[in-house]
Amino acid sequence: MINRNKLKTGGDRVSELTAGRLAVYLRCLNLLDTDGTKTVSSKVLAEQFHLNAAQIRKDLAYFGEFGVRGVGYYIKELKSHLRQILGLDRKVHVAIFGAGNLGMALADYPGFRQEGFVIVGLFDTAHSKVGHRSRGGVRIFDLADFRKMARKERISIAVLAVPAAAAQGVVNMVVGCGVRAIMNFSPGSLKVPSGVKLKNVDVTVSMASLSFFLTQGNTDG
Amino acid sequence: MINRNKLKTGGDRVSELTAGRLAVYLRCLNLLDTDGTKTVSSKVLAEQFHLNAAQIRKDLAYFGEFGVRGVGYYIKELKSHLRQILGLDRKVHVAIFGAGNLGMALADYPGFRQEGFVIVGLFDTAHSKVGHRSRGGVRIFDLADFRKMARKERISIAVLAVPAAAAQGVVNMVVGCGVRAIMNFSPGSLKVPSGVKLKNVDVTVSMASLSFFLTQGNTDG
Repeated sequence: MINRNKLKTGGDRVSELTAGRLAVYLRCLNLLDTDGTKTVSSKVLAEQFHLNAAQIRKDLAYFGEFGVRGVGYYIKELKSHLRQILGLDRKVHVAIFGAGNLGMALADYPGFRQEGFVIVGLFDTAHSKVGHRSRGGVRIFDLADFRKMARKERISIAVLAVPAAAAQGVVNMVVGCGVRAIMNFSPGSLKVPSGVKLKNVDVTVSMASLSFFLTQGNTDG
Repeated sequence: MINRNKLKTGGDRVSELTAGRLAVYLRCLNLLDTDGTKTVSSKVLAEQFHLNAAQIRKDLAYFGEFGVRGVGYYIKELKSHLRQILGLDRKVHVAIFGAGNLGMALADYPGFRQEGFVIVGLFDTAHSKVGHRSRGGVRIFDLADFRKMARKERISIAVLAVPAAAAQGVVNMVVGCGVRAIMNFSPGSLKVPSGVKLKNVDVTVSMASLSFFLTQGNTDG
């Protein structure tokens, strides 16, 4: 039912935007599923989560015929399809760099486990932290041990929660070890070779949007 | 030069998308400014940060004439305009709820201070934490003290880093205290009254996009 070849037809740019939206749909479906909802129409999905109903239909139709006329989407079935499209139907192994507050928070983030991500370990240069574990049980390793663990543990995503000054060095090292996907929480601009995907998460951007919203309400300028 | 009235012409939806993009432009300009770059064209800005040049020109033209033909944008000037549009030319006071790893990491996040956000305090129910400070010096207060601090400290944004089960209760409390903008890091779906802006930050969505990227490279399905 899923047309996997479709995944390769678009340019990288289109695919990434689509993937982002599919990931959002999956998040919404998880919430509905947790609430015990069985089916949902694109219209209700759009209304409840402030999405675009036409876009939902278009995105999902692109990968196959998921909806049922008059019923909408079966939530569990659609979740399973989306997980397959997004590559979440297999275990994805993740390493987190930096065992500070942010790294520790990410290691124990319940959403990751729920989606099948396996946090293999935290990596840090502080020897006093090595050997300890996060509250959720994720072990802290010496950064120097990553090289030999990367392939053995099939680590495919690196999450960067290190200070800005250390970030590019970690990127170079993990790319050298074959990692092709990086999520970066450090401020600053990082360079990756082509064929490696870098996703910057900057919460200041979300905060600035909220500031803009507050500005709109103040007519005194 | 800035047409503030334009901020009110679009529907809320358009404004929010635009604000999000303006915040991204500001982030990119900050990086260029730090590197010592003086001017940038929409084309170079787009190429360097994987943005859309036509969209940049359109977004900025909407608020006034910022670019200079043949030169592009003066970075410091454009930064200052964007900060004004986004309401970052005044101090925005922020409270963080939950003094766990995530809350502590957010309290000390350097990007917030850089953009003029003032983290007034962390709020938690754990009495053993109250009175302590984050590494960066942000003090932890008793959640029960928020009500009397909210107005005195002019807190306009609440950041939620509490467990999912506690999130809706905190939302109800802060909204009752006049807070109209909330950034939520807790998983799960929250309800806010109209007139209050809720922004959910779910890093699982970014992680799923990376997983999708990795899937594209694997032709064995």
